[in-house]
Amino acid sequence: MSKSSSSSPEAAAILSGDVLAASRLIRRIEDGDPAARPLLKEIYRSGRGARTIALTGPPGVGKSTLADQLISEFRAAGKRVALLAVDPTSPFTGGAILGDRVRLARHFTDPGVFIRSMATRGHLGGLARASGEAIQVLDAMGWDVILVETVGVGQAEIEVVHMAETVVLALAPGEGDDVQAAKAGILEIAHIFVVNKARREGAERSVKMIEEMLHLGPDRGPNSWTPPVLKTEALLGEGISDLMEAVSARWTYLASHPEVAEALGRSRARHVLTETIKTLAAGRAIDSREGEPEFQKILADIAARKEDPYTAAERLLGPAGG
Amino acid sequence: MSKSSSSSPEAAAILSGDVLAASRLIRRIEDGDPAARPLLKEIYRSGRGARTIALTGPPGVGKSTLADQLISEFRAAGKRVALLAVDPTSPFTGGAILGDRVRLARHFTDPGVFIRSMATRGHLGGLARASGEAIQVLDAMGWDVILVETVGVGQAEIEVVHMAETVVLALAPGEGDDVQAAKAGILEIAHIFVVNKARREGAERSVKMIEEMLHLGPDRGPNSWTPPVLKTEALLGEGISDLMEAVSARWTYLASHPEVAEALGRSRARHVLTETIKTLAAGRAIDSREGEPEFQKILADIAARKEDPYTAAERLLGPAGG
Repeated sequence: MSKSSSSSPEAAAILSGDVLAASRLIRRIEDGDPAARPLLKEIYRSGRGARTIALTGPPGVGKSTLADQLISEFRAAGKRVALLAVDPTSPFTGGAILGDRVRLARHFTDPGVFIRSMATRGHLGGLARASGEAIQVLDAMGWDVILVETVGVGQAEIEVVHMAETVVLALAPGEGDDVQAAKAGILEIAHIFVVNKARREGAERSVKMIEEMLHLGPDRGPNSWTPPVLKTEALLGEGISDLMEAVSARWTYLASHPEVAEALGRSRARHVLTETIKTLAAGRAIDSREGEPEFQKILADIAARKEDPYTAAERLLGPAGG
Repeated sequence: MSKSSSSSPEAAAILSGDVLAASRLIRRIEDGDPAARPLLKEIYRSGRGARTIALTGPPGVGKSTLADQLISEFRAAGKRVALLAVDPTSPFTGGAILGDRVRLARHFTDPGVFIRSMATRGHLGGLARASGEAIQVLDAMGWDVILVETVGVGQAEIEVVHMAETVVLALAPGEGDDVQAAKAGILEIAHIFVVNKARREGAERSVKMIEEMLHLGPDRGPNSWTPPVLKTEALLGEGISDLMEAVSARWTYLASHPEVAEALGRSRARHVLTETIKTLAAGRAIDSREGEPEFQKILADIAARKEDPYTAAERLLGPAGG
């Protein structure tokens, strides 16, 4: 592969921030189109290192409202913002989630804001890969801040947060009680905790419980980031400046701890590489052989239990250590 | 690989239906333990061809109650039943779902019933692979019927239904209106539609709307299965015998259309093979190289954008067509 710097017209369009060209590529990413790969290669090295912030938490805590407020704050500070809303939920709940997003409409006419949602569309797997690649596209476009909002529940949300350098976990009053969250490592992943809907009863108690859980958690070491626990009432704009300050403090921390920033970068690289290898290996060993009678014979043998899928996979992948 | 027939003591224990041995293996599957692979290979060919039924649908429609009633019916018919409850939701909602399952407790002391749940446990990806492998373990144990219930929302539920020969989609009155379901291909995947909570207003209307959607859908061809649309009130046991009859009709249909049954088997084999190849490729190219300085260099280069992950993945996988 030559180290050509963004030569194709499509890559040039995306690097110049062309919204239509970017939307076309993101659509191809969603479809899992392998022909999009050369273009993705081209733009990857041109990433501008945008600040990425993931916004996660259970349904109904007001993540969209928080995203809306953060967009306004960043715009007021002169930053250009992209929002990627990743929806790993089933289509059963699709309607409700779309309704939630209406309030974002006020940003639609602002050329300094780009909003794109990404759903499963019946795809098998692939959402983690697709959202990771979409973030790369947004980064190449030159947005200053990329917000990634997970608008559903599901394992995909855990995967998506690995793509961001700052993870904001939003909870509603009462949910801090639920120690379930601790089990999945979400507590370990989050950098900023927000108890939204803070005017409701129990907000203060939720803050205390989260702080307690953080104290009880594994020691993060002497130079580690200490996650703040904030209260917001996003619909009224309350607490949003505290949240912006916490984000800013996180950025200052990363700047003064390059070893942490580098470890985060390697962890993101590992995640992207894993997804890419899975897609590539399945494409080579399965998708591209669909038409071969020999491959159909393998499927029939596995179905008839004359062969097990592990032995077949090893044969299809070839000898180890390639 | 020699074609040894179930020689290890662990495999023998699972084939004899040993619940503890099976639980141990399922736990290792959940953990993604690569050392479990030889045992999985061993038992795969000893699968007994259990009847597999997937039970899916949005949260709150009563899937657990339906599962509970189906277990009772199958038990009354002398069948031994395993229930695998797959939970692709985030841990945020974990507590509520566990509460739902209390009613299954009446089967816990019946040796003819085996109930196992499978959650993400913070894993990245892998739930489709893990549940597919767990079904193989249950099949090798010799259960007559394997029920797979998806207890959450998320893309994993779409993947899991590919593992079953009969897919039951449960909806509540009013939800038939939501054409969202049609978009994700869930309507195409389901073989039996159930409007549960049928005493509620709007049940009849939901039935009509689903039937209409099925008519408007793509033509399934002259010898295709026609999905029935049923009403149940699972809490009161109403409509359950109709559901059992529909399942029985589906089995009769598959027996008299071997070409359909074979195509289903190949499709399942393709799905299992894809998941296995992804896991194996990622394990070889990434997990096993974690300690190598050369591999850490690749991650650092990707993080620094000196290399793109696609080129790195191609190099790590070796030349195509291995």
